[in-house]
Amino acid sequence: MEQLTTQVRDKHRLLSELARRRGFFWGSFEIYGGVSGFIDLGPLGTGLKREIEDSWRDFFLRRHGFTEISTPIITPERVLEASGHVQNFKDPMTECTNCHRRFRADQLIKEAAGTETEGLDLDQLSVLLKQVKCPECGGVLGSPQYFVTMFKTNIGPYGEDPAYTRPEAAQGIFVDFHRVLEVMREKFPLGIAQVGTVLRNEISPRQGPIRLREFTIMDFELFFDPERPECPYIDEVREDKLSIVTEDTRKKGRSETTRITTAEALEKRLVKSPWMAYFMSQSARFLAKLGINEHYQRFFEKLSTERAHYSSQTFDHEVKLDRWDWVEVAGFAYRTDFDLRSHMQATGIDLRVFKAYDSPIEKKVRTIRPNHQKIRQRFGTDAGRIISLLAREESWRVNQN
Amino acid sequence: MEQLTTQVRDKHRLLSELARRRGFFWGSFEIYGGVSGFIDLGPLGTGLKREIEDSWRDFFLRRHGFTEISTPIITPERVLEASGHVQNFKDPMTECTNCHRRFRADQLIKEAAGTETEGLDLDQLSVLLKQVKCPECGGVLGSPQYFVTMFKTNIGPYGEDPAYTRPEAAQGIFVDFHRVLEVMREKFPLGIAQVGTVLRNEISPRQGPIRLREFTIMDFELFFDPERPECPYIDEVREDKLSIVTEDTRKKGRSETTRITTAEALEKRLVKSPWMAYFMSQSARFLAKLGINEHYQRFFEKLSTERAHYSSQTFDHEVKLDRWDWVEVAGFAYRTDFDLRSHMQATGIDLRVFKAYDSPIEKKVRTIRPNHQKIRQRFGTDAGRIISLLAREESWRVNQN
Repeated sequence: MEQLTTQVRDKHRLLSELARRRGFFWGSFEIYGGVSGFIDLGPLGTGLKREIEDSWRDFFLRRHGFTEISTPIITPERVLEASGHVQNFKDPMTECTNCHRRFRADQLIKEAAGTETEGLDLDQLSVLLKQVKCPECGGVLGSPQYFVTMFKTNIGPYGEDPAYTRPEAAQGIFVDFHRVLEVMREKFPLGIAQVGTVLRNEISPRQGPIRLREFTIMDFELFFDPERPECPYIDEVREDKLSIVTEDTRKKGRSETTRITTAEALEKRLVKSPWMAYFMSQSARFLAKLGINEHYQRFFEKLSTERAHYSSQTFDHEVKLDRWDWVEVAGFAYRTDFDLRSHMQATGIDLRVFKAYDSPIEKKVRTIRPNHQKIRQRFGTDAGRIISLLAREESWRVNQN
Repeated sequence: MEQLTTQVRDKHRLLSELARRRGFFWGSFEIYGGVSGFIDLGPLGTGLKREIEDSWRDFFLRRHGFTEISTPIITPERVLEASGHVQNFKDPMTECTNCHRRFRADQLIKEAAGTETEGLDLDQLSVLLKQVKCPECGGVLGSPQYFVTMFKTNIGPYGEDPAYTRPEAAQGIFVDFHRVLEVMREKFPLGIAQVGTVLRNEISPRQGPIRLREFTIMDFELFFDPERPECPYIDEVREDKLSIVTEDTRKKGRSETTRITTAEALEKRLVKSPWMAYFMSQSARFLAKLGINEHYQRFFEKLSTERAHYSSQTFDHEVKLDRWDWVEVAGFAYRTDFDLRSHMQATGIDLRVFKAYDSPIEKKVRTIRPNHQKIRQRFGTDAGRIISLLAREESWRVNQN
């Protein structure tokens, strides 16, 4: 057992060494003593990354006529408040009362006790933390607190336009949804991707390239008419096998894999959306093409307590690694209309889509709409704040419709 | 005259409209009222940008066997202190005493009085500013102050690891120089590029896509042996014409263009480095390939007072626009060994390159080198700071060599 651990550790060390020597990647700011959570891609790494991105575009975008946009990393606080990130994108942190180093409370518990911690609140974590010692000095760990894991900054010289670096590229897609829909001639389903840098101010990243504070995400959002949820490509993958650890299995405290065709997974309602099932199959094919045998892949369904704030069903696409066991490489979330509804309520801009009834219905409605162009002309840099304040007043209208 | 201005303005407005409607680009966060200095690239814009990047790689990298790396956007403060950016990357800002809006003092002066302002200090700007009124309300403008135009943030939960988002991708190249040299088998000249996002917290960007707070840079640094400064590709471009507004011309208060072959520009020492002259010609060809007629291009030499802190000769590659007149699209700076020397002094890491004498010389030298690996093992997250403090002690050694 001891020997196996050593072997595994050595393989990881040897691969890291090789990656560095051949010019794939190494820790950033090496000559400054390094900063954990950041890696540099060398000549081979940069080329490899670009090939993976292009191959991903072939799998997920080009063949379906889906599109790609590019939006800023710096994101005003009000956008991430609307999306729920300011409220929810945080991790529980504990500080050692002796050496004052800080750690992710949930990770320490998981590593020390093997207990699943997602969805637990601070009180529950606090109780479990009493059985764990500081991994650095063995000291007693303090009560956990939440830490927002987005890098905070300010736009412009006022210091009063707070912003964060984006933790996902998806919000840029939602904010632009209506503009892109227009450009793409109002056709559904509309698939919009964004490949770009995202940042997460992790508390204590300690897993090399697995958990980074800065990395490239390939975000893809599909918008479809909920009255027409079917996926026209489903036949291509219906016999593809998926390995799923279902929510039901996990609720029974077990973790075995259900191996099932994509068609069956849909029939048995294990996957709620045909599009999601299709993209899960595509994702398994994509990883296989990158060289990851299907037996080292699985889809791990999240419990309702573990899911992100925006999702009604989530699968993590995981890959089995010698050193880190199962590691998430992609997430499939059925976000419903959570994001568009949130931005609509925050801005008062109507992001709904026109759909004709089979036979016309006539109805008179009186509404008030602020003229944003005039507000901008009159109030200049304050326009954003004013529009957003007006929008809160207006949101009753959106809610009532 | 009036009519011409209107026409020009309309053309700019029409093009912006077209770009938005066709899906090239539009202002970011539109539904939130917009934030100046940020644009989104739509489906066509994203594709066009990728094609420009790939074409650039063909022109500057692939054909020369030069390479590309990718390093983080978030950069620790100590790295940007060493590079001189914390000290020098700032703009003079003035606040209207009436409406309290803030502006770039130098730009207001340039727009109102047509005076060149680069290199002026706060006192000189203060005097000139007395003749300018607030462009928004006509109020009196306050004394100018410096504002650091990098977005500030903190790494990790301590709040004591201050960092900035990078204003250029070049520092990542310098910090990695020795690692990449090793990967590329110690061969000179060594060309290293980085294509990626950079951020500049501009005080009041008002020129649409021309002056952005977040944009993609294509940074390229060439490292060569100063005893072998010649460029093997120079013959390919020796008859190419360059349009240069030289430092000499500008010192005489004039601004006419010297039209001269690349070979002549080198013979007359108008351009100090053969490599720089070669890349300037390549850059002119590259822009011509993108569709910009050579008559709308020029190289504008910076005066010593205007140059960035790291440069001993700089040309801005400029393009003439109807609306904004001459606008910088690329910069060519002879950075000497400024950056490597700075990082060497800040870290104590020897970034010099071994070069054999023609006949060997024997010499005994006694040096002390801290063992960084042991320091990291013993001091963990404090290692970076300790190594950098030791390095300051050590730097006399580097300086004396």
